[in-house]
Amino acid sequence: MTSPRSIDAVFGLESRIEGILAFEAALARASAREGVIAAAVADVIVSQCNVSGFDLASIAREAELAGNEAIPTIDQLRARVAAVDESAANWVHWGATSQDAIDTALVLQLGDALAAIDVELARVIASLASLAELHAATPMVGRTLLQEAAPTTFGFKVAGWLDALLRHRARLTLARDEASVVQLGGAVGNLSAFGSNGRRISAAVAAELRLGLPDLAWHTHRDRLANVATNVAATVATFGKMAHDIALLAQSEIAEVREPAGAGRGRSSTMPQKRNPIGCATILAAAVRTPGLAATMLSSMAQEHERGLGGWQAEWTVLPELILVAHGAFVHAAFIVDGLEVDANRMARNIVATNGRIFAEAVSFALRSRVGRARASEIIGRALGRVNKEITLRAALDSDAAMAAVFSGDEIDALFDVSRHLGLAEETARRVAVAARQSVASVATPR
Amino acid sequence: MTSPRSIDAVFGLESRIEGILAFEAALARASAREGVIAAAVADVIVSQCNVSGFDLASIAREAELAGNEAIPTIDQLRARVAAVDESAANWVHWGATSQDAIDTALVLQLGDALAAIDVELARVIASLASLAELHAATPMVGRTLLQEAAPTTFGFKVAGWLDALLRHRARLTLARDEASVVQLGGAVGNLSAFGSNGRRISAAVAAELRLGLPDLAWHTHRDRLANVATNVAATVATFGKMAHDIALLAQSEIAEVREPAGAGRGRSSTMPQKRNPIGCATILAAAVRTPGLAATMLSSMAQEHERGLGGWQAEWTVLPELILVAHGAFVHAAFIVDGLEVDANRMARNIVATNGRIFAEAVSFALRSRVGRARASEIIGRALGRVNKEITLRAALDSDAAMAAVFSGDEIDALFDVSRHLGLAEETARRVAVAARQSVASVATPR
Amino acid sequence: MTSPRSIDAVFGLESRIEGILAFEAALARASAREGVIAAAVADVIVSQCNVSGFDLASIAREAELAGNEAIPTIDQLRARVAAVDESAANWVHWGATSQDAIDTALVLQLGDALAAIDVELARVIASLASLAELHAATPMVGRTLLQEAAPTTFGFKVAGWLDALLRHRARLTLARDEASVVQLGGAVGNLSAFGSNGRRISAAVAAELRLGLPDLAWHTHRDRLANVATNVAATVATFGKMAHDIALLAQSEIAEVREPAGAGRGRSSTMPQKRNPIGCATILAAAVRTPGLAATMLSSMAQEHERGLGGWQAEWTVLPELILVAHGAFVHAAFIVDGLEVDANRMARNIVATNGRIFAEAVSFALRSRVGRARASEIIGRALGRVNKEITLRAALDSDAAMAAVFSGDEIDALFDVSRHLGLAEETARRVAVAARQSVASVATPR
Amino acid sequence: MTSPRSIDAVFGLESRIEGILAFEAALARASAREGVIAAAVADVIVSQCNVSGFDLASIAREAELAGNEAIPTIDQLRARVAAVDESAANWVHWGATSQDAIDTALVLQLGDALAAIDVELARVIASLASLAELHAATPMVGRTLLQEAAPTTFGFKVAGWLDALLRHRARLTLARDEASVVQLGGAVGNLSAFGSNGRRISAAVAAELRLGLPDLAWHTHRDRLANVATNVAATVATFGKMAHDIALLAQSEIAEVREPAGAGRGRSSTMPQKRNPIGCATILAAAVRTPGLAATMLSSMAQEHERGLGGWQAEWTVLPELILVAHGAFVHAAFIVDGLEVDANRMARNIVATNGRIFAEAVSFALRSRVGRARASEIIGRALGRVNKEITLRAALDSDAAMAAVFSGDEIDALFDVSRHLGLAEETARRVAVAARQSVASVATPR
Repeated sequence: MTSPRSIDAVFGLESRIEGILAFEAALARASAREGVIAAAVADVIVSQCNVSGFDLASIAREAELAGNEAIPTIDQLRARVAAVDESAANWVHWGATSQDAIDTALVLQLGDALAAIDVELARVIASLASLAELHAATPMVGRTLLQEAAPTTFGFKVAGWLDALLRHRARLTLARDEASVVQLGGAVGNLSAFGSNGRRISAAVAAELRLGLPDLAWHTHRDRLANVATNVAATVATFGKMAHDIALLAQSEIAEVREPAGAGRGRSSTMPQKRNPIGCATILAAAVRTPGLAATMLSSMAQEHERGLGGWQAEWTVLPELILVAHGAFVHAAFIVDGLEVDANRMARNIVATNGRIFAEAVSFALRSRVGRARASEIIGRALGRVNKEITLRAALDSDAAMAAVFSGDEIDALFDVSRHLGLAEETARRVAVAARQSVASVATPR
Repeated sequence: MTSPRSIDAVFGLESRIEGILAFEAALARASAREGVIAAAVADVIVSQCNVSGFDLASIAREAELAGNEAIPTIDQLRARVAAVDESAANWVHWGATSQDAIDTALVLQLGDALAAIDVELARVIASLASLAELHAATPMVGRTLLQEAAPTTFGFKVAGWLDALLRHRARLTLARDEASVVQLGGAVGNLSAFGSNGRRISAAVAAELRLGLPDLAWHTHRDRLANVATNVAATVATFGKMAHDIALLAQSEIAEVREPAGAGRGRSSTMPQKRNPIGCATILAAAVRTPGLAATMLSSMAQEHERGLGGWQAEWTVLPELILVAHGAFVHAAFIVDGLEVDANRMARNIVATNGRIFAEAVSFALRSRVGRARASEIIGRALGRVNKEITLRAALDSDAAMAAVFSGDEIDALFDVSRHLGLAEETARRVAVAARQSVASVATPR
Repeated sequence: MTSPRSIDAVFGLESRIEGILAFEAALARASAREGVIAAAVADVIVSQCNVSGFDLASIAREAELAGNEAIPTIDQLRARVAAVDESAANWVHWGATSQDAIDTALVLQLGDALAAIDVELARVIASLASLAELHAATPMVGRTLLQEAAPTTFGFKVAGWLDALLRHRARLTLARDEASVVQLGGAVGNLSAFGSNGRRISAAVAAELRLGLPDLAWHTHRDRLANVATNVAATVATFGKMAHDIALLAQSEIAEVREPAGAGRGRSSTMPQKRNPIGCATILAAAVRTPGLAATMLSSMAQEHERGLGGWQAEWTVLPELILVAHGAFVHAAFIVDGLEVDANRMARNIVATNGRIFAEAVSFALRSRVGRARASEIIGRALGRVNKEITLRAALDSDAAMAAVFSGDEIDALFDVSRHLGLAEETARRVAVAARQSVASVATPR
Repeated sequence: MTSPRSIDAVFGLESRIEGILAFEAALARASAREGVIAAAVADVIVSQCNVSGFDLASIAREAELAGNEAIPTIDQLRARVAAVDESAANWVHWGATSQDAIDTALVLQLGDALAAIDVELARVIASLASLAELHAATPMVGRTLLQEAAPTTFGFKVAGWLDALLRHRARLTLARDEASVVQLGGAVGNLSAFGSNGRRISAAVAAELRLGLPDLAWHTHRDRLANVATNVAATVATFGKMAHDIALLAQSEIAEVREPAGAGRGRSSTMPQKRNPIGCATILAAAVRTPGLAATMLSSMAQEHERGLGGWQAEWTVLPELILVAHGAFVHAAFIVDGLEVDANRMARNIVATNGRIFAEAVSFALRSRVGRARASEIIGRALGRVNKEITLRAALDSDAAMAAVFSGDEIDALFDVSRHLGLAEETARRVAVAARQSVASVATPR
C-alpha cells in the first residue's frame, strides 16, 4: 500500500518543513534526555513542532534570501516557542546547524519515497512472475540485433526482466538502509556545542527518528545519497529495457503484445485506428532522463570543506526529481505489465513467417554433428540461398539430397519442431518466477 | 524588461494550452485563406481559441490517458466550437496532428523564455562592462592552478567573463532564431490532408505566428531544440566559471570581493559572523545541473520514424527545466554582478602578501635577457629559497651580489613595480567593455 | 578524400608535439618580426621545430611529472637550440606559457579533425541526396509511436535525415571557424612579458598559423571548444536517429532496407542465416556515448581564475575522444548510406499488410467532410472493428451501406490509392535533395 | 601490490583475446565433463587456447567486419584445432554465442581491474588512517560555503574522507562479487543447443573459471555492470571531494597543506616559484569525467530483445575507460596522501588570522545561555561590527561592559581557547582510523 501521502507530496514544501520540525522536536527531546536542556523546555519546543501552524509561503520567500528553508522555519519555530515561553526559545535548534535539519528531513522523505517506489516495484514483480509462469512455454521468435535469431519463449523473456528487477530491489533496499542515517554535526560537523555529549545526543536523535547513527556528520560526504540515486536510475534503466522490448513487440508488423486498453487511452488526434503505447513512452522518457540526473548527483559530490557551495543545493531538486520520474515510470510499468495483452497465436504465426530461417542454427548444429562443419555450412548455405516467400527452409532442405542422406524424415521433423529448441527457457521462467514470489512475500515495511 | 508573464508561467500549463490554441487559430485562419475551410468557419474557431474558457484541470487529467495535452485541448475546443456552430467543429485541427500543436506551442514559449533570459544576460553584460572599466587598472594577484602566479587586473579578469558572455549571447540569438519555426506536418509529416496546398498553408500559419517556415516537418528531427539546449547549458557553464571565481575570491582568507549585502541575505542559523555567498551557490548549483540536462536533450534525439516514443516525451520537462534553471542562475548573477563589493585595497595587500613571489617570473625574464637562462635560474632559485615570512623576494635579491652586478636599483624597483607587469590587461578590459556596450545597445526584441 | 594523416593520428602524441612546435616556431617568427628577438635567433629556433628529432617517449614520461606535455617538449627544444646556438636557447618560448602551446596545438588538430569529419559528412549528404531523389515517390508505411500510421515515401524519410544534417554541417562550420583562434596569453593571460607589444605579436602568431585572433587569451574560457563538442555530439545524435530508423526498417519482420552486404560482414558465430546491421550498431553506440562526453565538456568549463585545475586536464582526452567516436560513426554511416539496399516491393507489400488500416485517417477526413465528424467516427469505427486477417478496411467499408450512400466506387478507390495520400512527400524530397547538392558542392577546405 | 599485468594491459586486446580463449577452454572442458563432446576433443581444443599463437592484428581488422572480436578469434582457434585434429574443430565454441565469450572475458578482466583498483584504494585508506590519527587534535579553521566558520581538526577532516572511502570499498566489493558471473546462453540465452544439459554445463564453466552462476544469461540485462560502473564513479567522486579540499587548502593564501615534492613535479614553464598541485588536477579531471561515463553505462542498458544493437557495443570502451580513469586517479591519490605535507603551524596561524571571528558561534552560544538570545545577538553583533584588521573579536568583547557583566576573565579566555571548541573531532578521527585499519587488514584477494 502506498502511504496516504502521494509521492508528489512526499517531496513537497509542507513535507520538507514537517521533516525539519520532526528533527527539531527529536533534537529537543534528545537534548533534554542528556541534560543539555530542561525537560520542560523540550516539551514546549516539541509542542510547537506542528507544521499546521507555520506560514509556508513566507518560508518559501525568505528561503531565497537566507539560502535555505531551515533558517526561516527555525525563526518561525522560535517565535512560536517564545510566545509560549520566552526563555525556552533560546534552546530551539541548540547545537545544530541548518543543514542538520534539512538533511535529516531529506532522509525522512527518502524513506517514504523509496517505500512508495518499492510498492510499485513489488507490484511489477508479482505481475511479471505470473506472466513468466503463464507463458513459460509459449514459443516466440528470439531476436538479436533486431534480426530473427532462434526460438525462445515469452516466459523466458519475461524472466530476464524479472530477474534483473529482483537484483535492483535488493540493491535499493540496501541503499535505502544505508542512507537512513541522521544528520547531526553542528556548524562544522564536530558538534562542538555539545562538548563531549555530542555522540550520545546524536544517538538519541537517531533513535527518536528511527534512523541509523553514522560514524560522523556527512554534510559534505554524499555517497549514500548518490548510491540511492544511481540505484534508482539503474532500476529505471531496466524498466526502460522492458518498455523497449514491449514497444518493439507491439509494433504493428509484429503485434505480439499490446498495452492494456482503456477508454481514451493512447488514441490519436486524427488516426482512428491507433492505440499508442503511451505507457512505454512514459517509461522510455524516464529512462532517457535518469542517466543525466544520476550523473548530476555524482557531479555534485565534490562539495567543499565542511559545507559545500553549489553541490549541496543542486541535490535539493535533482534527487527528488529522479525519484519522482522513477515512480511515474514504475506506476506505468505496473499498469502495463498487469494488463499486458499477449497474443500467443501471433507469436506462433511470426515463427512460421520466418519461413524456417529461425531453425537454421539448430539445423546447422545437427548437420555439423553428422557431416562436419564444412559440409554442414555448404548444405545449410545452399538451402538458405533458396528460401524466399514461397520456399521455406524446410522445403529447400527436403529437396536437397545431401540432407536426405543424413537425416530421416522424423529427424527433419524434429529439427523444425519448435518445442525441441527451447533449451532452458521453460525451466528458467518457472524458477525465476518462484524466486520472485518469495521476494515480494516480504514487501518492504515502512520506517 | 521581462514580459509581464513570469518565467515560471511561460512554461506553465496555461501557457502551453494558450500556445496550442494560438496554433489552432492560426491554422484555421490559414486554411480559410487558402480555401480549405470557409472563412465563417475559421471565424468561429478563432473566436473560441481563448484559454480562459478551458478547463485546465480536466486537460491535465485526460492528458495522462491520451498521452499528450493537445488531444483533450482539441476535444474541448471542438465542443466549444460545436456549441456555436455544429458544422464548424468538423474543421477544428483539420489536417494537423497533435504534435504540430504541441511543438508549435513549445516554440512560442521558447521565444518568450529566451527573451526573458536575454534580458538578464544583457543586464549582466552591462554590469560587467562597468566593472571591467572601473577596475581596468586595479592590480590583483593572478592565480593559476589555485597558486599565486603573476599580477593581473580585476578588470581584465572581468573582461574574460564578459567576452565569453558576448559570444554566448550571439550564439543564443542564432539558436533561438533557428528554432523559431512552425511545426506543421500532419500525421506523418507530409501534410497529406491538404493535398498540394500543404506548403502554402504551412507558410501562412508560420506568418500568422511570426515564425519561420522549415524545409519540412521536424517531428523527429530535434536538432534545433538540442541546439538551444546546449547553448543555454554552455552559457550557464560560463556563469558557473564566473561564480566559481567570485566564490574563490570571496573566501575569508582572500576577501577580495563579496556578494552584495542585503537584510537577512546569506546569514547562518548559528554563526553570527557569516555572510554566505548564496548567489554563487545558486549559480554553481545550476552549473552542476545543466550538463546532465543538455546531455538528456542529446540522448532524446534518436526518435523513431515519423514520431517518436519516449524521446519526445522526455523533452517536455527537460527543456523547460533547463531554461528555468538557467534563468534562475542569470537572475542571481545579475544581482551579484550589479552590486559586487570589490576591495581594491585587499587586492593590493594580497599582492604584498606574496612576499614578492608574484614577481618571480618578471625577474626571471629580466635576468634571462641579461645573463642567460642558466645563470638566471640559479639567481632566482637561490633567492626564492630564502623567501619566508620575514624575507621578501626583493630583500633576498637585494642582498645577492649577482643581482646588483646586473641591475641598478632603479631597475630593481621597476621589476617590483606591479604597474609595469600588467601587459595588455588594462587595454583589453577597456576594449572588451566597449564591445559589450555595443552589444547590449541592441537588446533582443521579442517576437 | 581524407587528409593523408589518419584521424587517429591527428590526435596522437606526435601530432600534439608537432602542433606545439608549430606554435613555438610561429612565436619565434612573430617575435622577430616585432623586434622582441633577433631574426637570427628566430631562425635557429624555427630550424629545430621539427618533430622528427624529438624523443616522444621521454616527453610522455616527463609529462606525468610536469603536469603537461609542453614543458618537456620545450625543454628538448631548448636543448636542441642550445646545441646550435647557446644564447638563442634563452629565447625559446619567450613570453608564452605552456598552455599557450598546448591549446594552440589543440586548435590546429581540431582543424584537421573537423575537416576529416566534414569529408564524411559531405559523403553521407551526397548519398542521401541521391536516395531522396531516387525514392522521392516510393510509398511506404509511415509509422508513429512504432505503430503504422499513414502512408509516406522513403525519399521523404531520407529528406528528413538529410535536412537535419545540412543544418548540422552549417553549425559545425561556424563552430570550427569560431574555435580556430590562437592561444597566446603568457602566465596569466595579459602577455606582460611583451609589454605593449602583446597584441601585435598575438596577431602575428595567429597569421603565421592561419588562425583567428581572439579578443583575449581563453585559458579558462572554453566556450568555443564546448561549442565544437556539443555540435559534434548533436550531429552524432542525428546520425543515431538515422541508424535507429534503418535498424528498425531492417528488422526481419519489416525488411524494407538492409545494410550493404560484404564478405564476412555482420555474420553470426552460430546462426548461418544472420546478416547483422553492424554499421547501425556502431553508430548507435556512438550516439549512446556522445551525450556523456558533451556533458563532460560542459562540466569542465568552470575553470578556476587564470588557469584551471582539473577542468582543463579533463578536456585533453574527452574532446579528441568525442571527435574520434563521431568520425567512426560518420564513416560507418557513409558506407551504409552509400550502399543501402532498399526494397521498394517490400515497402509496398507492407502497406498492403496493414489491411487498409493505414488509410483510416484519409477515409476519416473524407467522411468528415461529407457527413460530419460524429457520423464519420461511427462509420469508420464500425469498419475498423471488423478488420482482421481476412477482412480489409476496404472490404469492411464496401459492405457498409452508410459508406456507399456518400461515396461512389471511384471515390472509394481513390481513398485507398496510396499515391493520392502522400501530400508533400515527393516535392519535399526533391527540394531537399537539391539543397543538399548545393551544400556539398562546397566541401570545406582545410585550413 | 598490483598484479604483474599493468592496468592498461588488463583491458588491452591481448587480454581480451586471452579471456575469450579461457572461456572457450572452460566450455570445452565442461562440455566433455557433461558428455556433450569427447574428452580427447576437449583436450585438443584446450591445448590451442593459448593467446601466443594468435594473430592479434588480424583479429582486430576482421572484428570491424564481423562486428566483434570473438568471431575472428574463434575462426583462428578453429583453424588451429583443425590443424591438429580436423574433426575436433567442429566442436569449438559448440553451443555458445560470441557474446558469451566476450562477456565472460570482460568479467575476467573486471576481476583483475577491480583488484588493481582495490590495491590503490587500500593504500589510500591506510595513509589516511595514519593522517587522521597523527592530526586528530591538530586545530584548523573549519570552513562552510568557503567562509571561515568554526574550529575543527585536520584529523577530523581526514576522517570524513576516510569514512566515505570505507563505504565505497565495501560497496565496490559487493558490486564486483555480484558481477563476477559467467555468461553462457547461446544464441538467444536459453542454451538450446545443450538440450536439458544447459544448466549443468553453465555451472561447470563457471566453476572452471571460478565465477558465479547467474540465474540466466544476461546478454541484455546489464545491471551488474552498471552497478560496477556507478560504484567506481561514485568512489572517484569522493576522491574528487578530497582533491578539491586539498587543492583549496593548498592555495597560496591558505597554504595549510601541499602535495609531496618531487624532482620536476608540478613546475611551471615560466614561473620559477610555482609548485602546482598536479596530482589534484589529475584526480579532479577524473571526477569531471566519470559522471558522464557512468551515465553512458546507464543509457546503454536499454538493450533490445535477446541481444542489443548499440548499447552493448558502447559498453566495450566505456566501462574499461571508466575504470582506467579511476585507477589513474587512485594512484595519484595514493601518492599525494602518502606524502602530504601538512603545515600545522600555518593552520594555527590561519585561526589567529580570523581575528577571533571563528569563535563567534561559541561566544554566541555562551552568551545565549546567560542572557538569552536577543541580548546575546545584540552583544555579539556589536562586537563583530568593530572587528577589523587591528581589533580582534576578543578585544572588542573585552571592551564591552555587557560582556564583562556576565563572564569572568577566565571564562572569556575559555571562549577563545580553540581546544575547547573541537567537540567530537579528535575522538571521531581516532575511531574512524581504527575502523580503517581493520578494513585494510583484509585486502581483497584476487580471484
